[in-house]
Amino acid sequence: MTHDAPALGRAVALPADPDSATLDRVPNPHADTDYVTRFVCPEFTSICPVTGQPDFAHLVIDYIPDRWLVESKSLKLYLGSFRNHGAFHEDCTVAIGKRLATTLEPRWLRIGGYWYPRGGIPIDVFWQTGKAPDSVWIPDQGVPPYRGRG
Amino acid sequence: MTHDAPALGRAVALPADPDSATLDRVPNPHADTDYVTRFVCPEFTSICPVTGQPDFAHLVIDYIPDRWLVESKSLKLYLGSFRNHGAFHEDCTVAIGKRLATTLEPRWLRIGGYWYPRGGIPIDVFWQTGKAPDSVWIPDQGVPPYRGRG
Amino acid sequence: MTHDAPALGRAVALPADPDSATLDRVPNPHADTDYVTRFVCPEFTSICPVTGQPDFAHLVIDYIPDRWLVESKSLKLYLGSFRNHGAFHEDCTVAIGKRLATTLEPRWLRIGGYWYPRGGIPIDVFWQTGKAPDSVWIPDQGVPPYRGRG
Amino acid sequence: MTHDAPALGRAVALPADPDSATLDRVPNPHADTDYVTRFVCPEFTSICPVTGQPDFAHLVIDYIPDRWLVESKSLKLYLGSFRNHGAFHEDCTVAIGKRLATTLEPRWLRIGGYWYPRGGIPIDVFWQTGKAPDSVWIPDQGVPPYRGRG
Amino acid sequence: MTHDAPALGRAVALPADPDSATLDRVPNPHADTDYVTRFVCPEFTSICPVTGQPDFAHLVIDYIPDRWLVESKSLKLYLGSFRNHGAFHEDCTVAIGKRLATTLEPRWLRIGGYWYPRGGIPIDVFWQTGKAPDSVWIPDQGVPPYRGRG
Amino acid sequence: MTHDAPALGRAVALPADPDSATLDRVPNPHADTDYVTRFVCPEFTSICPVTGQPDFAHLVIDYIPDRWLVESKSLKLYLGSFRNHGAFHEDCTVAIGKRLATTLEPRWLRIGGYWYPRGGIPIDVFWQTGKAPDSVWIPDQGVPPYRGRG
Amino acid sequence: MTHDAPALGRAVALPADPDSATLDRVPNPHADTDYVTRFVCPEFTSICPVTGQPDFAHLVIDYIPDRWLVESKSLKLYLGSFRNHGAFHEDCTVAIGKRLATTLEPRWLRIGGYWYPRGGIPIDVFWQTGKAPDSVWIPDQGVPPYRGRG
Amino acid sequence: MTHDAPALGRAVALPADPDSATLDRVPNPHADTDYVTRFVCPEFTSICPVTGQPDFAHLVIDYIPDRWLVESKSLKLYLGSFRNHGAFHEDCTVAIGKRLATTLEPRWLRIGGYWYPRGGIPIDVFWQTGKAPDSVWIPDQGVPPYRGRG
Amino acid sequence: MTHDAPALGRAVALPADPDSATLDRVPNPHADTDYVTRFVCPEFTSICPVTGQPDFAHLVIDYIPDRWLVESKSLKLYLGSFRNHGAFHEDCTVAIGKRLATTLEPRWLRIGGYWYPRGGIPIDVFWQTGKAPDSVWIPDQGVPPYRGRG
Amino acid sequence: MTHDAPALGRAVALPADPDSATLDRVPNPHADTDYVTRFVCPEFTSICPVTGQPDFAHLVIDYIPDRWLVESKSLKLYLGSFRNHGAFHEDCTVAIGKRLATTLEPRWLRIGGYWYPRGGIPIDVFWQTGKAPDSVWIPDQGVPPYRGRG
Ligand SMILES: [Ca+2]
Ligand SMILES: [Ca+2]
Ligand SMILES: [Ca+2]
Ligand SMILES: [Ca+2]
Ligand SMILES: [Ca+2]
Ligand SMILES: [Ca+2]
Ligand SMILES: [Ca+2]
Ligand SMILES: [Ca+2]
Ligand SMILES: [Ca+2]
Ligand SMILES: [Ca+2]
Ligand SMILES: [Ca+2]
Ligand SMILES: [Ca+2]
Ligand SMILES: [Ca+2]
Ligand SMILES: [Ca+2]
Ligand SMILES: [Ca+2]
Ligand SMILES: [Ca+2]
Repeated sequence: MTHDAPALGRAVALPADPDSATLDRVPNPHADTDYVTRFVCPEFTSICPVTGQPDFAHLVIDYIPDRWLVESKSLKLYLGSFRNHGAFHEDCTVAIGKRLATTLEPRWLRIGGYWYPRGGIPIDVFWQTGKAPDSVWIPDQGVPPYRGRG
Repeated sequence: MTHDAPALGRAVALPADPDSATLDRVPNPHADTDYVTRFVCPEFTSICPVTGQPDFAHLVIDYIPDRWLVESKSLKLYLGSFRNHGAFHEDCTVAIGKRLATTLEPRWLRIGGYWYPRGGIPIDVFWQTGKAPDSVWIPDQGVPPYRGRG
Repeated sequence: MTHDAPALGRAVALPADPDSATLDRVPNPHADTDYVTRFVCPEFTSICPVTGQPDFAHLVIDYIPDRWLVESKSLKLYLGSFRNHGAFHEDCTVAIGKRLATTLEPRWLRIGGYWYPRGGIPIDVFWQTGKAPDSVWIPDQGVPPYRGRG
Repeated sequence: MTHDAPALGRAVALPADPDSATLDRVPNPHADTDYVTRFVCPEFTSICPVTGQPDFAHLVIDYIPDRWLVESKSLKLYLGSFRNHGAFHEDCTVAIGKRLATTLEPRWLRIGGYWYPRGGIPIDVFWQTGKAPDSVWIPDQGVPPYRGRG
Repeated sequence: MTHDAPALGRAVALPADPDSATLDRVPNPHADTDYVTRFVCPEFTSICPVTGQPDFAHLVIDYIPDRWLVESKSLKLYLGSFRNHGAFHEDCTVAIGKRLATTLEPRWLRIGGYWYPRGGIPIDVFWQTGKAPDSVWIPDQGVPPYRGRG
Repeated sequence: MTHDAPALGRAVALPADPDSATLDRVPNPHADTDYVTRFVCPEFTSICPVTGQPDFAHLVIDYIPDRWLVESKSLKLYLGSFRNHGAFHEDCTVAIGKRLATTLEPRWLRIGGYWYPRGGIPIDVFWQTGKAPDSVWIPDQGVPPYRGRG
Repeated sequence: MTHDAPALGRAVALPADPDSATLDRVPNPHADTDYVTRFVCPEFTSICPVTGQPDFAHLVIDYIPDRWLVESKSLKLYLGSFRNHGAFHEDCTVAIGKRLATTLEPRWLRIGGYWYPRGGIPIDVFWQTGKAPDSVWIPDQGVPPYRGRG
Repeated sequence: MTHDAPALGRAVALPADPDSATLDRVPNPHADTDYVTRFVCPEFTSICPVTGQPDFAHLVIDYIPDRWLVESKSLKLYLGSFRNHGAFHEDCTVAIGKRLATTLEPRWLRIGGYWYPRGGIPIDVFWQTGKAPDSVWIPDQGVPPYRGRG
Repeated sequence: MTHDAPALGRAVALPADPDSATLDRVPNPHADTDYVTRFVCPEFTSICPVTGQPDFAHLVIDYIPDRWLVESKSLKLYLGSFRNHGAFHEDCTVAIGKRLATTLEPRWLRIGGYWYPRGGIPIDVFWQTGKAPDSVWIPDQGVPPYRGRG
Repeated sequence: MTHDAPALGRAVALPADPDSATLDRVPNPHADTDYVTRFVCPEFTSICPVTGQPDFAHLVIDYIPDRWLVESKSLKLYLGSFRNHGAFHEDCTVAIGKRLATTLEPRWLRIGGYWYPRGGIPIDVFWQTGKAPDSVWIPDQGVPPYRGRG
């Protein structure tokens, strides 16, 4: 009943797992100054290593670029590479942050992972590379807390 | 860097595609009366048949059971079976509704598919099996409209 | 470490299960007229018959009394009697509605059960005794839909 | 009227009280770095030691793991062990925080207990093990304040 | 420590109870046409007849005037006359509606009483004089439902 | 028309004024540690000393107990004692804070008084006993600002 | 201290009162079809005839044009002409609606006047020229209700 | 200072005006059934014919397809073609609806145009091709009303 | 058509301009302690010096009184005196703050002026007399930002 | 079908690109004091240098003027000059901030650029000229985060 053309029913572009994904960087056009770039990624999904069932998260990434900006298409593919990959919530969130930090060598970076509830209890994970510089303006990520029902 | 134990890195339980998924039903304990059951599924993802990239949707399903209720674990697996399956937004939403209607033979059923934006323009799809019975109470689905930024 | 005085650590007043609970009624002081009474019960919990784990729900009950109003303390104890009782979501919600309808013989009654998510998918259940009278004013229950994260 | 199969109507898995509950821990995969893990538990209930009636709370726990992460299933059972246990609001919230701190030996931990109103006045309790480290990012818990009606 | 000037510490103007209060009316300047007037009264309080403790409500009154409008200062004093008066929630709300209907002889009137929670369960009461005329526009009262915490 | 049984129509329990009210305290079970207790009191009313008309406020009280916790029933009665008492907004809010501070000898205390508008302009009052200790976690009170209409 | 240049400190363009204001109309470019035009006017102010003090309102006007559309600059000036004009809430709102109906000869028109609170009680006024045509789509005005504080 | 590579600084793909834009259609895969497709377009801009300054709108389009669905890329380009085109609010909104209706020959279509304020007063425009079929489910568009400030 | 009794149609009490307005002060009953008083004034209007058209603002004033409190009726009249007075947004907001600071000699004062949009762009102005004392609690003003539409 | 008068269909006033736009300044009437001026610009659009398609952003600019204020009409035209200009998100936002800083020589300035999502992931950019002075009050910009759907 669903659309089922031969060539379409398979994912053509997603890397098979995070290790296979390339994260590209481009020169920062304002490398002489401190500013923050934020990516909001509400479309993240991975696989629970214990149950094999899908997990979902809303990710928010803030960083102060130094010489490099992340190339946004490669970021999207990198995040998509978790689609068939087993990953625990705490581990996965911090690992994404560290991979970005290694690639971009930013002045500072943080990631918030806001995971959908399992067993009635969602997990949020907050990591940053270190104390944020005082002279830079970094607004709250402002993701509403999980609240149950009512 | 991410967790990568041999047995865990693959999805073990998700059906390969919607046709392979079984949707089970159990007897309705209140078949003598009209009532509505609503499922909210904010964790739906499929593959865009054109680009091969992931799509995401928030699905809400309302139905008035007749003899059958949907078995909730099988519903979850059925929805999960779209994970690696190509499907257009309008088509996919209506097809899920029709599959449920065929399986459950409900007195009435509707589905709302609230898709994440592509090209700056999200698509929502609203389908029902026919006019809702006057004597049944069916609240609005109440999903906030997409609003852009600001 | 928690407070643990001998006499306090056990529930003294809750009925052991719904069948043991008495639901009292008092005369309606405005039996000559149609009006609606709404109870919002955000503190409902029962036990999942399959897993033995607790379930939680936010319940909203609307009714048009005829000769009787529900006695509110007995309603609270009746709802509390599900605390150690196994009950499926759809069944439990409708059964509470029917018990109230049997006891109060109202002109009309409805119940909305808004259950906390399990497996990422919450269930809502909506039941009423029949079509609401046209001449009575019955506002929406207005419970926000489940939305996941983000 | 409710579902009442013999084997299902009793809670099989919940520990009888907090002292009987085991809180497990697993190794922290990122013990070389500071990050925060947040659990939101909107499904907490205990018994009022004075009246024997149920109390409800929305709990939010933040911690910076050192060598250990809490094992999430044991956390769920530990919190469930308060279901038939008498506990005052202030005492209970702080005691849960201290039990977690003793078990996990975290670098830092805090707990917010947002209790449902009694006598028209809800109580919130906020405890932490000490001043939060400056270099770690810990967002507000963001639980909306109680507001009465209107 | 509080301000305590002799003449000020007593209420000078509130009627002692609803029966002592006068509800005045003034001519409707647009008696040739149907329109709705809404009063929102978030400052209502009365006394619980059982416990002697204060109760609070948020009241919203809608009416289609015929020959008379309510004089707003007398409405305020009438509502204030419940301050030291014992009244049950359902009864009180409907009685206020009936008193207004008797005094104003409106084409139609309704009242919503949104009471603050007692025992964890708030009561809302909705009464109207009859079916609202089709040709008049009467927006929802839009009072948010009680939601507990979280 | 309202319920008017002889014994019920009078307030039996409220102290006549704040000076007559007793504010009780109980031992702090966690006196070895710093934590915050918050009371939200949306049901406060007093009398305007100038006009004799009722005033209403939403009060939020935060404190770090030292040896004592406030006994919550006596707090409720103390606040209720303002019901027939004349008090200016600024004065009343600070006086309540000081009375609590004198009684509880807390390590720190603050009170926010959010008054309903008079003359189109609401007054909010914010008082604390002194600078809050750095090592304690004290969330914002989060009361939405007055906004008029629209 | 404020800016006070000779030519600027006086209103040059506002009509002195509603009777002096001209309300212009322009041809409807889609007179062959039914559609709704909505104006939201959150900047309305007039004078209370009793106290001489300013009143404020948020006005929303919906109409189905027939041959004419209102010229928007003249609408703005007409509404501004109430700035120094005495007008009661109910009367003023309906009068504005009638003036627009007389000028535009629309197929249908309604006005909602959402007035800022006086004496703790805001007044809303809802008027329309008659039953709205079934075949036209007219969304709710969606103005949040007054809620006091908290 | 801004990025200014030779080939990039010009719009390459937008049609010069609505008449030059092609609106394509594709076959409806569920032509045997009634359902609704919604597009939310928060990125619409045109030119004010009077002042030559940019105008902005948030557009929401709902339709029940018959034989055709709109091809979404061509819709995006069609809406983009207003970027340098003069158009009044009421006229433009209805004209877009009519162009879609002519192209798609839908069973029913509506458009809501929510324009940004000019002169302190925003205009909303609501048009549909006729009464919506009773048997189809069409949720509210749910765009929040303009509210000014506060 | 509007109410037009001879004595009522003119403003009797508003000062003609800010210089003519008297701002009164009364003794601070808690001069021995630091606390904050907040006034929210959503009903402010002045005249644009350039166009002669009305401007509107939502003002929020916070101060720590020393010996004096502002007399609230005189504050209302002072703000009302801008009704027919020309004033630029930035200048007017700061000037009001300075006038209050001069009159009240407070320990500290700030004013936020949230102006309604002109030309699609609202202006907000934030001024304070100096760094706020560390030991005083001053909540955010919490006025929602302007957001356009959608 | 749309309005198409010869003289109106072209933008008459917008500068062709940012370099052609003049940004004017006027003297600061309160140069003796520190205060913040905020502009919210929800109507910003530019062209993507890669695809030639329109981009949209919500911009918020805060600054502490020294000798100069920005002339608001020239600011509007300057922002409008990006309408047909190619610009990357990060670059464009910082470049606008630097242009304002160069022109106004403010004591401090910051800009937040909240871009509409592309590829499911919006980018926000936050830049300021340096650490904000301690003694000035600068509220959060308070723009809600992007949240996807649900
Ligand atoms: Ca720096
Ligand atoms: Ca039926
Ligand atoms: Ca927007
Ligand atoms: Ca009836
Ligand atoms: Ca979501
Ligand atoms: Ca650290
Ligand atoms: Ca009528
Ligand atoms: Ca809840
Ligand atoms: Ca301490
Ligand atoms: Ca401490
Ligand atoms: Ca407003
Ligand atoms: Ca028609
Ligand atoms: Ca309230
Ligand atoms: Ca049909
Ligand atoms: Ca001080
Ligand atoms: Ca300074």
